[in-house]
Amino acid sequence: MATASGHTEAIRATRVIGATVYNTQGEEIGKIEDVMLDKTSNSIMYGVVGFGGFLGMGEKYHPIPWASLSFYKDKNGYVVPFSKEELKAAPAHSLKELTENDGLGARDEAYSFYKVDPYWN
Amino acid sequence: MATASGHTEAIRATRVIGATVYNTQGEEIGKIEDVMLDKTSNSIMYGVVGFGGFLGMGEKYHPIPWASLSFYKDKNGYVVPFSKEELKAAPAHSLKELTENDGLGARDEAYSFYKVDPYWN
Repeated sequence: MATASGHTEAIRATRVIGATVYNTQGEEIGKIEDVMLDKTSNSIMYGVVGFGGFLGMGEKYHPIPWASLSFYKDKNGYVVPFSKEELKAAPAHSLKELTENDGLGARDEAYSFYKVDPYWN
Repeated sequence: MATASGHTEAIRATRVIGATVYNTQGEEIGKIEDVMLDKTSNSIMYGVVGFGGFLGMGEKYHPIPWASLSFYKDKNGYVVPFSKEELKAAPAHSLKELTENDGLGARDEAYSFYKVDPYWN
């Protein structure tokens, strides 16, 4: 899955964390609370997005595949190509649950729900 | 470079950032200030390690390949397999320099210096 070394885009984790997340209608839907890293494969597993204050749900953490989070400099935030309805129905977990079983359960569920090609195949 | 999906180890970026880094002699050599992420290839480029207070150098940021940072739960920190002499001679940059040219310069220099196999080949 690696791209040519010329096609990178370096961004610091501390800049990612706290960034606002919008849907394609330009509505604020949450913010990036954390990024889950996979020590073994050198891969970014997913962004951890909190939707609580925006979609009227109790604060839960949504794993969203990194490839679905597009950074827009003019917004200083991320846009995800999902509707409010999709996001309301999306997998959500506590931070503790996200790291259970080496993080595999939450990761696989998220990639399946959002129909994103797994980076690990 | 992806491993089988059973061989992951999930760790949150906010837990990584701020962790102490030791060398193999058990000496504290710095702490992880940030993690550089590659948006395009879904890869972790490197850890950004500050050595300033420990090796007597002015504060600079050292890119260290993610694969060279081994987490030890009992230390709640990372161990790198490098000597003090290697670390003193290691590439160091300002945070701004690290992200220049999509981060390629600092990344490639670090992997070459530490003799770590590139994840992007």
